[in-house]
Amino acid sequence: MKLSAHSQQPIGVFDSGVGGLTVLKTLMEHWPHENFVYFGDTARLPYGTKSPETIYKYSMQIIGYLRQHPVKAIVIACNTASSHCIEPFIENIPLFNVIEPGSRAAIKSSLNKRIGLLGTRATLLSQSYQKKIKTLDPSAKVFGQACPLFVPLAEEGLIDDPMTDLAAYRYIQPLLQEKVDTIILGCTHYPILKKAIQKVAGPSITLIESGEALSLWIKETMDQGALAQNTSSSENRKVEILSTDGGEHFQNLALQILDVTDFSSKNILYRMVDLSG
Amino acid sequence: MKLSAHSQQPIGVFDSGVGGLTVLKTLMEHWPHENFVYFGDTARLPYGTKSPETIYKYSMQIIGYLRQHPVKAIVIACNTASSHCIEPFIENIPLFNVIEPGSRAAIKSSLNKRIGLLGTRATLLSQSYQKKIKTLDPSAKVFGQACPLFVPLAEEGLIDDPMTDLAAYRYIQPLLQEKVDTIILGCTHYPILKKAIQKVAGPSITLIESGEALSLWIKETMDQGALAQNTSSSENRKVEILSTDGGEHFQNLALQILDVTDFSSKNILYRMVDLSG
Repeated sequence: MKLSAHSQQPIGVFDSGVGGLTVLKTLMEHWPHENFVYFGDTARLPYGTKSPETIYKYSMQIIGYLRQHPVKAIVIACNTASSHCIEPFIENIPLFNVIEPGSRAAIKSSLNKRIGLLGTRATLLSQSYQKKIKTLDPSAKVFGQACPLFVPLAEEGLIDDPMTDLAAYRYIQPLLQEKVDTIILGCTHYPILKKAIQKVAGPSITLIESGEALSLWIKETMDQGALAQNTSSSENRKVEILSTDGGEHFQNLALQILDVTDFSSKNILYRMVDLSG
Repeated sequence: MKLSAHSQQPIGVFDSGVGGLTVLKTLMEHWPHENFVYFGDTARLPYGTKSPETIYKYSMQIIGYLRQHPVKAIVIACNTASSHCIEPFIENIPLFNVIEPGSRAAIKSSLNKRIGLLGTRATLLSQSYQKKIKTLDPSAKVFGQACPLFVPLAEEGLIDDPMTDLAAYRYIQPLLQEKVDTIILGCTHYPILKKAIQKVAGPSITLIESGEALSLWIKETMDQGALAQNTSSSENRKVEILSTDGGEHFQNLALQILDVTDFSSKNILYRMVDLSG
C-alpha cells in the first residue's frame, strides 16, 4: 500500500455530536505526536434515530469534507455511522470504524461468550456488531439493547442523575438476565454515562469502550506501513475541533469530556463550519 | 390585502418532527374542508438544542419548499422555529406561528397572571413568549423552564412511563413553587405527554396548547379576507404528510398522534422528501 498522505497531516475523527470526543480523548493520549481534526455534526444530530440512507449521506458528506482538509486517515467515532460505512480504505487513505475494534475487544474479554450490546436503534438494526462478532467467533452470542435516551441524557450532561440511573436500569437489566459477562458500549456517547452503567451492571461485568482497541488498530496499520506516523515534537501538536452548530453548550461539554479547563491550554482550536455551502 | 393564493391550495404546517402533528390534528378537526400539507424535518431534528442561526436557516428552507408546493398559508407548528420567524406574512401569504395564540390563551386563562412556560432551551433563550406576553399584559409574570428531555421522551412514545413522570416532576415542581395557575406547553411535542404533565401539575392548573388558539387566529384572518377559505366538500379533503427522514418509526408515531388506524382511511398520503436536492 502506497502512502498517499503526509505524516504531519492530521487524523480526522468524526461523530454526530460530542460523543466521539470520548474517542478523541483516548487517541490524543495514545498518540501525543499526532495532529487531529474533530468534526461534530451537531446541526443534524442525533444520527441513531435516522434511516440508513440519511446516515450514509451525512457520513459521506463529512468524509468528503475531511478528505479536502486534508487528513491522512479518518476515524468514524460514531457507532451509528460506522455501522453504515465499514470499508477499510477510502480513496487510498485508511478509514477506521469503531465496530471492528469493539468487537475484537469484547471477544477477548468474554469468558462465557455471552456479550451484551448497548447501542442506538440504527446500530442494532444494522446488525453490524452481530455480524462482525459472528465472523470472529461463531460460538459467541450477542444480546442487543437499544438505548434511545442515553444520547440526550449524555448531551444534557446528566452524568450523575436519577434519570440516568433509571434509564440505565431499564436498558441493562434485560442483558443481566441473559447472563452476559461483557457489555459493549456501542455508542461513543455511552462512556460519558459509564459510572451509572457500571453501577447497574455490577463490578463483575466488563464494559468495552472502543477507544483503546481502536488505538491498537491504528498502531497495526502504522506498523504495516499503510499510515505514516508523525514524529514531530508533541509540543507542537495541534487539535482542531469543528462543529456544524456552534453554541456555548457544545464547547462546555467538549471541555468537560476532554477534561481540560480551556482549549488553548492544550493547543486546541474550535470553529464552526457550514456543510451546506 | 390582496389574496395571492387559491382557496383550494393546502395550508402548509411544519415542525422539526412529529410534534407539530398535535397541531395538525386540531386544525384538521376545526377545518374539515381545508387541504393540508405537513412537513416534518425528521432528518435534522431536534431544533430545540440548536443555535438561532441554524434554526432560522432550516425554517427558511422549509418555508421556501412549502411556498413552491404551493400553499396558501404556512403554520409554523414548532415553538422553537416560531420563536425565530415571527413575521405575519411572507411573500404575501399569511405566516402563522404558535407563540402569538399560546400567549393570548395563557393571558385569558390566568387569574393571578403568574404563567409557567415549558419549552426547549432555544425557545426560552429567544424570550419570544416573555416579550409577547409582556406586550399583551405588562403586569403578567412568566416563569420559564427548559425541558430538554421531553422531546426525546415524546419521540420515543414513552407517554405513560416512570421516566416521563420523573422528568415531569423535575421540570414542573419549580413552576408550582412560583404559584403559577397556568402553564403553557411551549413545544408542540409536549401535548403528547400531557397526561404526565397534568398529573404532576394537579387539576387546578390550566395547561395551554396552541392548536385551539391557533384555529381562532386562522378564522380571524379568513374573516378579514387575508386568507381564502376552501368551500369544497370535506369528503374530498386531502392531507399530505412529508418528512425528510422516513422510517416506520415516524409513520407509526404519526398514526398514533393523529389517532387513525391507517393513513388511507382519512385520505392521508405519506412520502419522504429530500431538501438537499
